Amino acid sequence: MFADRLVAATKIHGPLCVGIDPHAGRVPALFGGDTGEGLANWGEAIVECAAGRVAAIKPQVGLFERLGPDGMIALQHVCRAARNAGLLVLADAKRGDIGSTAEGYASAYLASGAPFEADAVTVNPYMGLDTLEPFMRQAETHAKGVIILARTSNPGSADFQTKNMDGAPLYARVVEALAPLIARLKGKSGWSGLMLVAGATGPEEARALRALAPDALFLVPGYGAQGAGAADAMAGFVKGPDGLSGGLVNASRSVTFPTAADEAKSLTDWRTAIKTAIDTAQTDLKSL
Amino acid sequence: MFADRLVAATKIHGPLCVGIDPHAGRVPALFGGDTGEGLANWGEAIVECAAGRVAAIKPQVGLFERLGPDGMIALQHVCRAARNAGLLVLADAKRGDIGSTAEGYASAYLASGAPFEADAVTVNPYMGLDTLEPFMRQAETHAKGVIILARTSNPGSADFQTKNMDGAPLYARVVEALAPLIARLKGKSGWSGLMLVAGATGPEEARALRALAPDALFLVPGYGAQGAGAADAMAGFVKGPDGLSGGLVNASRSVTFPTAADEAKSLTDWRTAIKTAIDTAQTDLKSL
Repeated sequence: MFADRLVAATKIHGPLCVGIDPHAGRVPALFGGDTGEGLANWGEAIVECAAGRVAAIKPQVGLFERLGPDGMIALQHVCRAARNAGLLVLADAKRGDIGSTAEGYASAYLASGAPFEADAVTVNPYMGLDTLEPFMRQAETHAKGVIILARTSNPGSADFQTKNMDGAPLYARVVEALAPLIARLKGKSGWSGLMLVAGATGPEEARALRALAPDALFLVPGYGAQGAGAADAMAGFVKGPDGLSGGLVNASRSVTFPTAADEAKSLTDWRTAIKTAIDTAQTDLKSL
Repeated sequence: MFADRLVAATKIHGPLCVGIDPHAGRVPALFGGDTGEGLANWGEAIVECAAGRVAAIKPQVGLFERLGPDGMIALQHVCRAARNAGLLVLADAKRGDIGSTAEGYASAYLASGAPFEADAVTVNPYMGLDTLEPFMRQAETHAKGVIILARTSNPGSADFQTKNMDGAPLYARVVEALAPLIARLKGKSGWSGLMLVAGATGPEEARALRALAPDALFLVPGYGAQGAGAADAMAGFVKGPDGLSGGLVNASRSVTFPTAADEAKSLTDWRTAIKTAIDTAQTDLKSL
């Protein structure tokens, strides 16, 4: 089960997930710059630095897709390199559609041998539970995970997600509706591979989300450059005999574009900068 | 403005939009079957048949993406062929994300010279208005359109979209919140290029949606094989001196996989079958 693999890997390495977000104009010239080849080289180099240091990476699909088919080839290289290196791959695609189109997306990211094979993919729940079903079926067949957008942390999340739907915020209604799906992807660890994007705005909201879905692994955005500290990021995690568990905390800019990497004059300097940034973040998160 | 181009084209041709949905295993061997090349050949052949007959085509991105980068190259070919043939292209990508990732998707589909350049792209509103802004900016800069999922017609749309949010269904709250965006993309025709996916379940709901957004062009799914008749599909359209206007009605299976096309022994027979199916649907819709 995906959940058990994730829990085992975070027990070894800690909860950090390295976000691979090739923002326009940010991929160093050292790797080929803002081209498909540059993205592939840079992403593979990040994977090399992350291997053995973290449980998972999360490529941001939109930042590959902006370069068209060449960017999608780069995404494919990064996913393959990461899985070959023993890292879990969370494809941050935020897909979602009806019927056979959802089957298309699910088979593109979750099937065994899929073109962009990942261990889990992010999905938008707006269209309803039937649109999640094709992802669920691929996850069940291939021991993969499905990551549903519940509560995102952007300012606009207040437009709909936090508005009152019959006595509870929409995001809480989404989490409630997911209960049977959470049960279906539950592993031996007791955790479910039906993960929730849990961008809580504070520790109270994170604990409320945890109460709504005690078994769902969380994917927490916004640690590091985006502002949240370790304690806030892990407020929805659960204390056990082995320390805190309950999901992954994503960091992107702070670990893939640290100042020392931007200023690196050689590949060796760049690698040292990235590894140091990853170790620093992981130590911070593991200190709790 | 995109809205004005769409309204002018539908005045000439009628409201039919041809959905290009390469379902797994459905692309005829005549074109190369279920491969990137097959999808490109088949999609371009559909474009040839649709040119001069309809205002717009709508490629379903997930059904190209399932084949990986090769499928995305096919999507690129289909978008280019359609735009070169003077057809409006609505990329049905249902994307949506925050900040620079949304910018990535918007530049992939709406920028001038974009890899998958379309005239409009479908976007999921769940994450909030700030996540729509990068699409709005590209639309304003390049005279393109943005198509927001408001009310979809799948059974699961009842899970969240139709639930009560402070006195009105969520989809109505989404449409209300879009009012300033609708105003920003309004053309000389009085119609806005901020389109709504309006999969109403019946004529009353369609008219209610129209009342909420008098100026938004609708993209209506589900005509033809999926069940709705012409009168139902166009219940949210508005009667004027030139007949009904107010958007596009999408048909996919019924016009791209008619029985006569499945049984075609030659390319000539296949072309005749597709053209006949398109003309039949267009005549049906224009009869109102």
